[in-house]
Amino acid sequence: MEEQKIITSLQNPLIKKVLQLKEKSRERKKSGLFIIEGQRELELALKGGYTIKTLMVCQELRDDTEWFQKSSHPTIQISKPVYEKLAYRKTTEGILAIAKAKPHALKAITFQTKKPLVLVAEAPEKPGNIGALLRTADAANLDVVVIANANTDLYNPNIIRSSVGCVFTRQVGMGTTDEIITFLKENNIKICCAALTASDNYINTDYTDATAIVVGSEATGLSNSWLENSDQNLIIPMQGEIDSMNVSVSAAILIFEAKRQRGF
Amino acid sequence: MEEQKIITSLQNPLIKKVLQLKEKSRERKKSGLFIIEGQRELELALKGGYTIKTLMVCQELRDDTEWFQKSSHPTIQISKPVYEKLAYRKTTEGILAIAKAKPHALKAITFQTKKPLVLVAEAPEKPGNIGALLRTADAANLDVVVIANANTDLYNPNIIRSSVGCVFTRQVGMGTTDEIITFLKENNIKICCAALTASDNYINTDYTDATAIVVGSEATGLSNSWLENSDQNLIIPMQGEIDSMNVSVSAAILIFEAKRQRGF
Repeated sequence: MEEQKIITSLQNPLIKKVLQLKEKSRERKKSGLFIIEGQRELELALKGGYTIKTLMVCQELRDDTEWFQKSSHPTIQISKPVYEKLAYRKTTEGILAIAKAKPHALKAITFQTKKPLVLVAEAPEKPGNIGALLRTADAANLDVVVIANANTDLYNPNIIRSSVGCVFTRQVGMGTTDEIITFLKENNIKICCAALTASDNYINTDYTDATAIVVGSEATGLSNSWLENSDQNLIIPMQGEIDSMNVSVSAAILIFEAKRQRGF
Repeated sequence: MEEQKIITSLQNPLIKKVLQLKEKSRERKKSGLFIIEGQRELELALKGGYTIKTLMVCQELRDDTEWFQKSSHPTIQISKPVYEKLAYRKTTEGILAIAKAKPHALKAITFQTKKPLVLVAEAPEKPGNIGALLRTADAANLDVVVIANANTDLYNPNIIRSSVGCVFTRQVGMGTTDEIITFLKENNIKICCAALTASDNYINTDYTDATAIVVGSEATGLSNSWLENSDQNLIIPMQGEIDSMNVSVSAAILIFEAKRQRGF
């Protein structure tokens, strides 16, 4: 790495661009770029095949210089005040990156196993829930996560953060509910829909063949298209005063029942 | 209900007190009072045996007058601007209550079943996670939830909100880790600790006798006292890139495996 100047001004055009990419979904979509914060997240993105356009390092906040000096990515030094303006986690790690988004087309999905286990989430809203779903999908080593009728940008910084980088570790497909139903049927994947109106206990369903576990939004549940095209509608019995659980909790219960049946 | 004046001033002493109870844990502890927002939450609190000191109603935001007119609680009318200042959810329901806290001593816990299923969470931090744990505990109809070494006030408005009122539906005990371990042993409750250092897959443990499922904080896991006094340390196998899941997700996977073994 050559000797570099340190960017110290918040008025610097690159810094302004980074701020816009962080804050505005529109800017991310227009440019196809987004921001990664933190070393672990960056390492998971690199491992997941993401392309890094620019690495931004605050030397003052790092113990070592080694990690990013070895990297082949264009690297820019930034001052601590600039880093603190750009970062969510003020005093940690000192590393940010501008990365290129992936396309997430359904047709690009490849299955490495003959009997894949897939999670489909329809119109999830809260970034924290989406992050938790992605974290569970990573832990369960799911083949793919598919988001139907997405109304939140996958590269929202709160999703990256709450997924602790797991947004980069699984294949993520996106499409409309109709496109995804067609995709699952074409691939002979059994559609299992979590529904409060279902009568079959989820533990009585077999998840050992190619299976998609489908969960809806907390506010409205799954749309009728899913329930009508489902191979099996299932319910997690709830025995308390309320009639719904957090969507990331419900999904995890179903996914790990499938893992149990599959012998992990 | 008699004809009443409507409080319209944010300077009214009662309104100031409500704001303090909402925002300051210290005020809640000192007075033994807290604030409930929303009709469902209030109904669950009443059903859970909580005492309501004062009901505060914004008539403008309610379709009916019936519900609170029937109530025997002292009721005060507040204007829409006052309600909006006090409430998190600006435009819904129009109902708040000042309620009395419960003691949550371990010795007050009563078991209705011979083989109770208990959740213990050590030092949980984020209100959203605590809320999700309580919501899962409700859905699973757990006998009791115990919080060890609590560092968040149970009546934090964010816990009440994220639990959608389930903070009121289960018995909640609180104590130090040592007190709780003694309590569980005295009651012959098997202690099953979730630990990343454990080697036994959670599905190989029997949860059909009296059982406590114990989970630690996301940052530090369980303290050594738990692991040393445990009857069984267990792990949820994780096969992806990261080595931990959201604590409310892990707890739900364990709780519902216990429910499965118990035949719901």
